[in-house]
Amino acid sequence: MNVKTKVAIIGAGPSGLLLGQLLHKAGIDNIIVERVSPDYVLGRIRAGILEQGFVDLVREAGVHERMDKEGHVHDGFDIAYYGKRYRIDLNKLTEGSTVMCYGQTEITRDLMEARSASGLNSYYESEKVELHNVESDSPQVTFIKDGQTITIDCDYIAGCDGFHGVSRQTIPADKRTEHERIYPFGWLGVLADVPPVSDELIYCKTERGFALASMRSSTRSRYYLQVPLTDKVEEWSDEAFWDELKKRLPEDSLKNLTTGPSIEKSIAPLRSFVCEPMQLGNLFLVGDAAHIVPPTGAKGLNLAASDVYTLNKLLQKRFNDNDLNAPLRYSEIALRRVWHGERFSWWMSNMLHDFDQTEVNGMDKATFDRFMQSELDFFLNHEEGQKVIARQYVGMPYEEIN
Amino acid sequence: MNVKTKVAIIGAGPSGLLLGQLLHKAGIDNIIVERVSPDYVLGRIRAGILEQGFVDLVREAGVHERMDKEGHVHDGFDIAYYGKRYRIDLNKLTEGSTVMCYGQTEITRDLMEARSASGLNSYYESEKVELHNVESDSPQVTFIKDGQTITIDCDYIAGCDGFHGVSRQTIPADKRTEHERIYPFGWLGVLADVPPVSDELIYCKTERGFALASMRSSTRSRYYLQVPLTDKVEEWSDEAFWDELKKRLPEDSLKNLTTGPSIEKSIAPLRSFVCEPMQLGNLFLVGDAAHIVPPTGAKGLNLAASDVYTLNKLLQKRFNDNDLNAPLRYSEIALRRVWHGERFSWWMSNMLHDFDQTEVNGMDKATFDRFMQSELDFFLNHEEGQKVIARQYVGMPYEEIN
Repeated sequence: MNVKTKVAIIGAGPSGLLLGQLLHKAGIDNIIVERVSPDYVLGRIRAGILEQGFVDLVREAGVHERMDKEGHVHDGFDIAYYGKRYRIDLNKLTEGSTVMCYGQTEITRDLMEARSASGLNSYYESEKVELHNVESDSPQVTFIKDGQTITIDCDYIAGCDGFHGVSRQTIPADKRTEHERIYPFGWLGVLADVPPVSDELIYCKTERGFALASMRSSTRSRYYLQVPLTDKVEEWSDEAFWDELKKRLPEDSLKNLTTGPSIEKSIAPLRSFVCEPMQLGNLFLVGDAAHIVPPTGAKGLNLAASDVYTLNKLLQKRFNDNDLNAPLRYSEIALRRVWHGERFSWWMSNMLHDFDQTEVNGMDKATFDRFMQSELDFFLNHEEGQKVIARQYVGMPYEEIN
Repeated sequence: MNVKTKVAIIGAGPSGLLLGQLLHKAGIDNIIVERVSPDYVLGRIRAGILEQGFVDLVREAGVHERMDKEGHVHDGFDIAYYGKRYRIDLNKLTEGSTVMCYGQTEITRDLMEARSASGLNSYYESEKVELHNVESDSPQVTFIKDGQTITIDCDYIAGCDGFHGVSRQTIPADKRTEHERIYPFGWLGVLADVPPVSDELIYCKTERGFALASMRSSTRSRYYLQVPLTDKVEEWSDEAFWDELKKRLPEDSLKNLTTGPSIEKSIAPLRSFVCEPMQLGNLFLVGDAAHIVPPTGAKGLNLAASDVYTLNKLLQKRFNDNDLNAPLRYSEIALRRVWHGERFSWWMSNMLHDFDQTEVNGMDKATFDRFMQSELDFFLNHEEGQKVIARQYVGMPYEEIN
């Protein structure tokens, strides 16, 4: 079977769904192809802190009703540094910017429902997804759905299929450069239906390693512990997790800590990754397909959102203003903001974790530790330093696209 | 021959001389022992940018007359980033702090003359300087002067004798930790009696590597080029130096560039180095004896000055307020500020140089380059970022010592 559309979107995660909705709003026909089922997509536990730019995009897509009702605006967050708590007052330090706490799963669900209500074409559980002729004017996507081969003829392909997806791999290795930094530790995450220890996030640097107190809602907490990559999730009982967490949270917060059974528990590695360029011909890489950040600083989903913003604007210029060359600018514009997010996440990770290595960043561990202690000390104890953290945490403004 | 004093100062560079003068002003008897001649000391071409704290110390020592007349206050400096010039307006960004341009040689000369005028005891051209019993209450310094062995009996020893001096080596290796980062390039410096290309410094990041346009006065220029460590100074003719400099200075500055014969030319390696602790018993390490920074950011002499400030204050408490334990706090207080200067110099060096290596700081060179480009881009284009640079460039305030 052959179908035709302007933009074929690979992947029904939040990036693909948001792009589809925005393009639809702008009258640009699109189809989503997803390898797994909607429930599987919704089962992924991910980020929950949305920059203002992301929130605005969700509003532009008209999918903001539940987010506005159930999401929580965070005016700031805390960094606890060997027990001393510093408040990063985002609202004050940036003169009015804040972030929104609303789970990625919820955003995805809202976008799926909106897409479904709009009657837009999505193929879930598509097998053997392949992209063809992406450097020509008539790219194609093929896949097998319920035993039948389907071919999509399109003008553009948006690869929103994540780090392990087919889109980036479609770009021949000699036409892309991959930048990577692997960190020597992982995050052990626990989700539990207990009220969070604090209304807002607490990033904790301790002698035992990093910890993060986060949440999805006022009744669902998300906690993380820095753990060695050799740790296995099966080795961490709920009890052991809460015990270790208590040793890393600031002491004055413990009276507010409610523990309970975990409803999800997993260990994720930390990686900085960028693929340059983020496009080849008429194929664009969006979000995790092109770049990964360590979760420190909550930039992953937000960088995907700014890719979506950029691609949506450029495709509108292409289809609605007949600016045929507009899409050629995607990679350059997107990468500028991506590198800022990559650097911020790298920096926050460097400052807040314990690097259990003999050598870090070309120095012995003790030297690196001293640098990072002095760095935190400077940035937390000077207003301009706090402003630098805050400005980047709320996210760089999206570039105007003319 | 035996002589007696309260503080034996090893080294007659600016740190030793400044400390001697300040102690003398406070009525604390001291003797300086120096390996080389006064002319040799004055022949060293070094830094020329003094933080306000340093300037205040020179005033406190009463040796400010010529500095106030001939020194130039710099309200700011420029960073040229791939040709685009950014002004770091120190005065505005820090609400009133500036730096003073006055050569280290001049400061040293002024301090030597003042010491001489005060009739204070200094032994130049002392051979085989050795420190003894530094962990006891009666440390000694021995050396040979004009064939005669001289022994100084003292209460304290201030090791102001630089990176290669005897003082740090006197601390047994198992009682100190040395942190080090060697950079994979050097600075080729030229001193010339020509007016500087600009009234204030220009730090240049270019595709050909780093360059710095500096000066000692309105008629004496100091320029630097990043060069590979394998380069030999003999291979660099004056002509080749000026040719390369022209390719790295911002184009709009070239009309003001005056070239001329070099009166000094040398290649210096770049190093970050800290010895912890900075004291053992009654021996204190001051300045380069304890720590080295790469010259990017002009922190070397200024960190020495804050060591002098701290040690002077603590010795005053010891001798004038009879606080016997005061000197024990030296290393801890000094190191806090040292690490800030080390980190700032490391950061500025990372951002402004080209690392001609396959791997830098745990990343491939291209990735590191992207991080540093994005870092410069962020800090130069945001007021809070410029303030972070400015605040550190003018120097952290000296700690109050109670």
